[in-house]
Amino acid sequence: MAGNIFGNLFRVSTFGESHGIALGGVIDGCPAGIKLDFQEIQNELNRRKPGQSSIVTQRNEPDKVNFLSGIIDNETTGTPIGFVIYNKDHKSDDYHHIRDVYRPSHSDLTYELKYGIRDYRGGGRSSARETICRVVAGAIAKQLIKNITITSYVSSVGDISINKSYKELDLSRESIEKNPIRCPDSDTAKKMIYKIKKIKNQGDTIGGTITCVIKNIPIGIGEPVFNKLHAELGKAMLSINAVKGFEYGSGFRGTKLTGSQHNDLFQKNGKTKTNLSGGIQGGISNGMDIYFKIAFKPVATIMKKQRTIDKNGNFILIEGKGRHDPCVLPRAIPIVESMTALVLADYWMYAKLSKYSSIKN
Amino acid sequence: MAGNIFGNLFRVSTFGESHGIALGGVIDGCPAGIKLDFQEIQNELNRRKPGQSSIVTQRNEPDKVNFLSGIIDNETTGTPIGFVIYNKDHKSDDYHHIRDVYRPSHSDLTYELKYGIRDYRGGGRSSARETICRVVAGAIAKQLIKNITITSYVSSVGDISINKSYKELDLSRESIEKNPIRCPDSDTAKKMIYKIKKIKNQGDTIGGTITCVIKNIPIGIGEPVFNKLHAELGKAMLSINAVKGFEYGSGFRGTKLTGSQHNDLFQKNGKTKTNLSGGIQGGISNGMDIYFKIAFKPVATIMKKQRTIDKNGNFILIEGKGRHDPCVLPRAIPIVESMTALVLADYWMYAKLSKYSSIKN
Amino acid sequence: MAGNIFGNLFRVSTFGESHGIALGGVIDGCPAGIKLDFQEIQNELNRRKPGQSSIVTQRNEPDKVNFLSGIIDNETTGTPIGFVIYNKDHKSDDYHHIRDVYRPSHSDLTYELKYGIRDYRGGGRSSARETICRVVAGAIAKQLIKNITITSYVSSVGDISINKSYKELDLSRESIEKNPIRCPDSDTAKKMIYKIKKIKNQGDTIGGTITCVIKNIPIGIGEPVFNKLHAELGKAMLSINAVKGFEYGSGFRGTKLTGSQHNDLFQKNGKTKTNLSGGIQGGISNGMDIYFKIAFKPVATIMKKQRTIDKNGNFILIEGKGRHDPCVLPRAIPIVESMTALVLADYWMYAKLSKYSSIKN
Amino acid sequence: MAGNIFGNLFRVSTFGESHGIALGGVIDGCPAGIKLDFQEIQNELNRRKPGQSSIVTQRNEPDKVNFLSGIIDNETTGTPIGFVIYNKDHKSDDYHHIRDVYRPSHSDLTYELKYGIRDYRGGGRSSARETICRVVAGAIAKQLIKNITITSYVSSVGDISINKSYKELDLSRESIEKNPIRCPDSDTAKKMIYKIKKIKNQGDTIGGTITCVIKNIPIGIGEPVFNKLHAELGKAMLSINAVKGFEYGSGFRGTKLTGSQHNDLFQKNGKTKTNLSGGIQGGISNGMDIYFKIAFKPVATIMKKQRTIDKNGNFILIEGKGRHDPCVLPRAIPIVESMTALVLADYWMYAKLSKYSSIKN
Repeated sequence: MAGNIFGNLFRVSTFGESHGIALGGVIDGCPAGIKLDFQEIQNELNRRKPGQSSIVTQRNEPDKVNFLSGIIDNETTGTPIGFVIYNKDHKSDDYHHIRDVYRPSHSDLTYELKYGIRDYRGGGRSSARETICRVVAGAIAKQLIKNITITSYVSSVGDISINKSYKELDLSRESIEKNPIRCPDSDTAKKMIYKIKKIKNQGDTIGGTITCVIKNIPIGIGEPVFNKLHAELGKAMLSINAVKGFEYGSGFRGTKLTGSQHNDLFQKNGKTKTNLSGGIQGGISNGMDIYFKIAFKPVATIMKKQRTIDKNGNFILIEGKGRHDPCVLPRAIPIVESMTALVLADYWMYAKLSKYSSIKN
Repeated sequence: MAGNIFGNLFRVSTFGESHGIALGGVIDGCPAGIKLDFQEIQNELNRRKPGQSSIVTQRNEPDKVNFLSGIIDNETTGTPIGFVIYNKDHKSDDYHHIRDVYRPSHSDLTYELKYGIRDYRGGGRSSARETICRVVAGAIAKQLIKNITITSYVSSVGDISINKSYKELDLSRESIEKNPIRCPDSDTAKKMIYKIKKIKNQGDTIGGTITCVIKNIPIGIGEPVFNKLHAELGKAMLSINAVKGFEYGSGFRGTKLTGSQHNDLFQKNGKTKTNLSGGIQGGISNGMDIYFKIAFKPVATIMKKQRTIDKNGNFILIEGKGRHDPCVLPRAIPIVESMTALVLADYWMYAKLSKYSSIKN
Repeated sequence: MAGNIFGNLFRVSTFGESHGIALGGVIDGCPAGIKLDFQEIQNELNRRKPGQSSIVTQRNEPDKVNFLSGIIDNETTGTPIGFVIYNKDHKSDDYHHIRDVYRPSHSDLTYELKYGIRDYRGGGRSSARETICRVVAGAIAKQLIKNITITSYVSSVGDISINKSYKELDLSRESIEKNPIRCPDSDTAKKMIYKIKKIKNQGDTIGGTITCVIKNIPIGIGEPVFNKLHAELGKAMLSINAVKGFEYGSGFRGTKLTGSQHNDLFQKNGKTKTNLSGGIQGGISNGMDIYFKIAFKPVATIMKKQRTIDKNGNFILIEGKGRHDPCVLPRAIPIVESMTALVLADYWMYAKLSKYSSIKN
Repeated sequence: MAGNIFGNLFRVSTFGESHGIALGGVIDGCPAGIKLDFQEIQNELNRRKPGQSSIVTQRNEPDKVNFLSGIIDNETTGTPIGFVIYNKDHKSDDYHHIRDVYRPSHSDLTYELKYGIRDYRGGGRSSARETICRVVAGAIAKQLIKNITITSYVSSVGDISINKSYKELDLSRESIEKNPIRCPDSDTAKKMIYKIKKIKNQGDTIGGTITCVIKNIPIGIGEPVFNKLHAELGKAMLSINAVKGFEYGSGFRGTKLTGSQHNDLFQKNGKTKTNLSGGIQGGISNGMDIYFKIAFKPVATIMKKQRTIDKNGNFILIEGKGRHDPCVLPRAIPIVESMTALVLADYWMYAKLSKYSSIKN
C-alpha cells in the first residue's frame, strides 16, 4: 500500500511519470459482462486533455489509451483490465533548468528527501499527468454503475462564484460543456474566463472550486464506521493534485446553523423536504442527491520570476517554462467525476453483499 | 472491509453499540517495546467522557477501558492489544419511544433499509459512543509517535470564531483545557459558552469547527498518489460523526488566491517562509506544521418537538429524551486528536520502509 | 497486517495470549439477518475444549464465549460482532521454570529475537489457545454458508492410517464423534487410540493427518490468479499450529500419474466421472466435492527430559510440566473446519459479486 | 481483491491473457534506491521461456519485458514500476477447435459458469502464461533481498526422485542449469529426461515435485497468527498453475514421528542440530535454512484423444493441438523462486517495522 492503488473490490493500480515512457494501470475486480463504450472513455480523456481551449495548457498529447487485456468483443471478461497510454509530447528539455532546483510549493524537495532520488522531468510521479489513469478507470467505473449520474462543474474561480444552488442550474453535459470553463451559468462563466485570461497574461495562476452532484443513487451505499461514503469521497477528492478542501451537504456553512434549522424533516415517502445532509446519513446514501464541493489551490508553476533554492542551498531565480495551466479547474472536471465513480463503483459492490440490498446486477 | 477497521500497519478493528453490553477493539501491528502510560490513556477518555461540564451531556459513564492482551509490565509485546469498555449507564428506556420512529437527520431509516434490522437504542452502532474505541487506540498511537505533537481546539461555535492564526494562540494542554469549550482564546471561549448555554436552554443544538495542529513531524510521511497524507487525514476526520467538511493549509480560502500569493518560498535551510501548503507537499510531510480545520454540523437530537414519520409512514411528533450534547465540539477534541494519531502512526510506519528514511525506531 | 486478521469481506481480527486475561476478536463484514444458533457455537467450542477425553490434555477451561455486540434477538445486525473468552484455569506457575529457557521446537527464542520481549506463560500468543477465536468465528461462518457441509476427521496417527477414500466412510457428525480420536473408521480408531495411549505413557507425543471434505459447494467460488480457492485454503490450514503440509485432490500422489490417468472426464451433465482435481479448476470450485489433507507434526512439549539452552547460552535439562496433549489431532478437528468455513464464507461473498453468480442471499 | 494482486508492502498487480495483446503488471511499494540488473531479470524470463530444450514446448516467444516507469538510470525511484510483455507468437488458430468445447481438467467450463464469458484462446487468463508477470516481479524482489539465496530444483518426475537431502546436493545455479530438467543430481536427471521423452512420445504428460531452499535468511521474518511465513509461502506456491500440494520441513513424513524424534535441539549458539522444523518457528524464520516441496500434477493438455463435452452437452473427442509441455517442472523452477521472492520481499519489509529488527536497509 505504497499509495498507488485505489479501491478494494473495484480496484485500480496505476503507474507512470509525467515524462516517462508511458502511464497505465490495471483494474482488478471489474465484473464480467459489462459492455464498454470506448468512444465514451475517449471522450472523458479528451475532456481532461491539454490543448482543448485557450485557457488551458497548449501541450499536445493525443492521450490515446490502449487496452491490453480483460475485454473480448467490447465486453469485460472479469479478468483484470490492463491499459497503457504512451507519452508522446514530452519536452523534457523544458525541465533541465530545474534539475538541481526545488520549485516553491511543488514536491521536488519533499520527494528527494523521502526517496533519495527524484524524477525532475515535469514533476515525475507527482505531476497531475498521473490523473489520466484515474480518468480511464473512472470512465469504466461510470459504465458499471451507469444508472447513477455524476456531474461536476466549476462553481468558483478566485472570488467569482455561482451564487445559485445546483438545483437551479442546467446540469446536462451540453450545458456544462458549452463553455471552456465548464460552468453551467453562462454569465458567471464569462466572468471566470475573463478572469483567467487576465491572470494568465500576468503570468500568474488562480484557484477555485468544483461542485459535484450525484443523482439517482440507490439507498444503502456506504459502510460505517470508518468507511463512511462521504469519508471515502473526501479522501478521493483530496488525493487529486492541488485540492485543499472538501465539504458535503451543508459543509462549513452548516456549522453556523442550529439543529432545528439543519435537520432534514421526512416526508411520508421517506424522502426529506430539505437536504442539508447531502444525501448521506451515518455514512450511507439515503437516496437523496449527494453533493459536495472541492477547493483547488492556484497552480504552483507560474510564468513569473520567483526566488527559490538549489541543491546547494543557494538562492536562485526561476520562472516557469513550457506550457502550463493558468487554472486547473476545467481540466479537473473529468478527474473529479472519475474519482467519484471509482468510489461509487467500489462501494456499490460492497452494498450488493447485503442480504437486503436493493442493488441487483 | 465492512468499515470497522482503520489503518493498515497500525490497524484498529472496533465493535460495539451505544447501548449494547460493551464496546471494544483490537489493535494489530503496534510494535513491541512501547512503554504505555495508562493514566494518559484514561486522561484522553476522560476528555471525551460525558458529564465533564454543564455544557455537555450529563450521562454518567465511567468509560473505563480494560486491556486484555498484548501488554506485559506496561510494555507492548507486538501481539494484538485487545480492549473492552463495558456500558454501565445505558438507559435504554429513553429510546423506547423511537423504536418505530425514524428521527430526522439520524441514520435510523437508512440503517434499516440497508440492513433490514436496526438497533434503535441510542442509535446503536451509528452513535458517537463508538468513538470511545477511537480514543483508546489513538491514545496508544500517540505514545508510539510521542515526539510528534498533536493539538486540537475549538475554533468556532456557530458564528463565533477565533479570528487568530493558531500561531498566535497558546496551544499548551493547560491553555486548551482551562475552559469547558476547549478554546485557547479566553474571550472567545466565554462567548462560545454563553452561546451554547443559550442554545441549550432553547432545547436546540449548534455546530462549529475544530482546528488541529501537528508539530514536530518528520519529513517524508505520506504516500503518493492515492494515499496522500492529507487525503487520509481528511478521510479520518470525515469518518467522525457529524463532520461535514475538511480543509488543510489555505483550504477554501486559498482558492481565491493567485499562485504568486499562494506559493511558499523556500528559505536557505529548506524550510518555507509562509506555510499556506499546510506542511504537506505532494501528499508528503515537508517538516513544516500541518494544520487543518473540520466542520461539525449541529447535533441532530434536539429537545424540541419535530415532525417525523414512523414505520407505517405516518407523521408523528417527537422530542429528544435523555441526556444529549447541545454542542459536540468540546468532547470531539480528543476524538480528532485520536484519529490524527491513528493516521500518523500508520503512515509513520510506512515511512520507515524507505531506505532513506530519517525515521528511526 | 501484522498477522492477526483473516479474510477480507468476512473478516476476523483476534487477540489474546494463552495465560492472559482473555482472548477474543471482532468479526467485521458478517451480513445482517443471520439467525445464530448459540448452542451450536458452544458445541464447536466444546469439541475443541481440553479435558474432553483421556487422550487429550486435562486442563479445565470452561471456554465460554461472550458476545458483546452485533447481535439482536439472536440475529446479526450487520455491525461488527465482538466476542471475548476469559481465561480461567491458567496455572501460570507451570511455566515459571521456562521463563529463561528456550524450549526445543517452540517459538520461544524466535519470538524473543523478533520482538525483544516474550510472554513465556504457556507460549503466550504462539500457543494453540489462540485457535479458540478461530472456532468462534468459524462457527458463525458455518451458519452463514449453512448449505455447504464441511466435515473433517482424523485420517492417520503416526503410521496408522485409514486406507479408504472419504467416500467409503460415514461422515456424519455422529459417526465421527463416536470415538475420542474422531476417526469414522472404528477399527482404525481403536488402533489410533491405543497408539496415543502408549505414546502418552512414554511421555511422548505423535503426529498425524486430518482429512477435510466440503460437499454441496456452489460452482464459482474462488478468485484467480493469486487467490485461488485451494491457495487460500492452504494458507488457512498452514496457519494452524503444528501444521507442516497441505494437499488437495490427488495431492502428492498425483505427481506420479500421467495426464491421461489424472484428467477428470466430463459426464454430459457437466459433472466429472473421477475427481482427482479435488473439486477445484483454475482456483474456482466446479461443484464437485472439495477434499484436502493436512499434516500435523507431533506436539513439541513432551514429558521427557530434553537438553536445551537458557538465556545465557548454557545447556539445561527441561521436562514438560502441566497438562499437554499427546496428540493434537482430535482437538484440531473443529479448528480445521472453522478455518475452512472462514475461507468459504469470505470467498462466497466475493462470488456473489459476479453478475452471473448462482449464489443468492 | 479479485485475485490478481499479490503482497501488501511489496505489491504486484498483474494482467493479461495467454493470447491477448499483452501481459504486464505494476509493482507498488518497491523501495527507492535499488540498482537493477536488467540482464538478470531477462535471464529469469529466459529460464521460464518456452522452447529452451527438447523436453519443453516449442512455442517461440521472445518474452521481452518493457519497463515503463519507476526506474531512472537503472535505479528504482520508489514510484510504481509498470511493465508490459507483448504477445508475439500467439497462434490462436490452434484453439478454434475448442471454442465450444470444455477440455477435461481445465477451467474452461468453470470460468464460463462463473463469468458468463470465457477467452477460449489458450486458456485465456487461466493459462500458465500469466506466470511471466510473476517472474518479472519476482526477479526484482530477488534484487531487493539480494543477501537471501533462493534455489529450487526438480526433485521428482513421476516415480523417479532424488533420494538425497538438499544438503547433499550442489545447489549452485551452474549445477542446476547443467541439464534441461534442472535436477542437480546428474544420474537422476538422466532418468527423468528419459522418462519425459518417453511420456511425450506417447502423447502424454507427467507430474512431479520441486524442492525449494532458502538460505541466509535473517531471523524474524514472518507474522503470527494468520500470516505465518510458511502459510504465505504455501499460498504462493498453491497459486501456481498445476500445484496440488505443499509441505515444509518434515512435512507429511513428520506426521509419523514422535515429539522426541521430531524436536530440533538447540546448540549453544541458538542454532539447532537438526532442522525438521524447516527454518520456521511459530510462523517466523529462526535463521536456519527454510526448505519446502511442491507437488505438480501432470499437464492436462495431452496429445491423445479424450472424450469430453461441448456447449450443448454432447460428447465429443478432442486431442491437444499446438505446442505444449509434456512436463511443466523445469519451466516452473523460476516461477517457484519468483513467488518465494515475492513472499520474502513483502515479509522482509514487515520485519523492518519491528523496533528490534536486525534488518537494515
